[in-house]
Amino acid sequence: MAATQQYVYPDRDEIRIEAVLAALADPVRLDMVRQLADAGSEISCSGFDVAVTKSTLTHHLRTLREAGIIMGRQQGTARYNSLRRNDLDELFPGLLQGVLAARR
Amino acid sequence: MAATQQYVYPDRDEIRIEAVLAALADPVRLDMVRQLADAGSEISCSGFDVAVTKSTLTHHLRTLREAGIIMGRQQGTARYNSLRRNDLDELFPGLLQGVLAARR
Repeated sequence: MAATQQYVYPDRDEIRIEAVLAALADPVRLDMVRQLADAGSEISCSGFDVAVTKSTLTHHLRTLREAGIIMGRQQGTARYNSLRRNDLDELFPGLLQGVLAARR
Repeated sequence: MAATQQYVYPDRDEIRIEAVLAALADPVRLDMVRQLADAGSEISCSGFDVAVTKSTLTHHLRTLREAGIIMGRQQGTARYNSLRRNDLDELFPGLLQGVLAARR
């Protein structure tokens, strides 16, 4: 029997601006957030276009998840990630838009 | 003859989002930026209400300066710091507003 991996997400009111900023300050994670924003929908863990190893990708996903920037949804053996855009826009109106406006 | 301390500031088009986010991710620096935004004017190096040593404050000011978040102006023996709000709003519209909206 396979154990179900449990992930912990901060509730909206537990999301801290310092953690969000620190998570977004990494160029790979920022690029992942841009890809999620551009997609406007979920991206599976294998669907990100990033030049990192699987374990590094897992680390980045965890950092984004624990900061409150993304959510994950398990479906079969795949995990789909989505941007917590509503939560972030509610807490820090303009932040995400400003970050995404940065030239690449 | 006292040497004039020279500071290096990134031009607007040299300001990188990753450096801005990393600089703002520190709670003391974020608080200093909030104080500058609230003041709406310059704050001297001794005018920040932060519980850190002078050398730590100097470090934080340098980090903010090198990220392109603040400018400094020397006047006599005092140095006055101001937020580069126009530059940041132009480059990353909404970012600063969103960060400042975060509860303290």
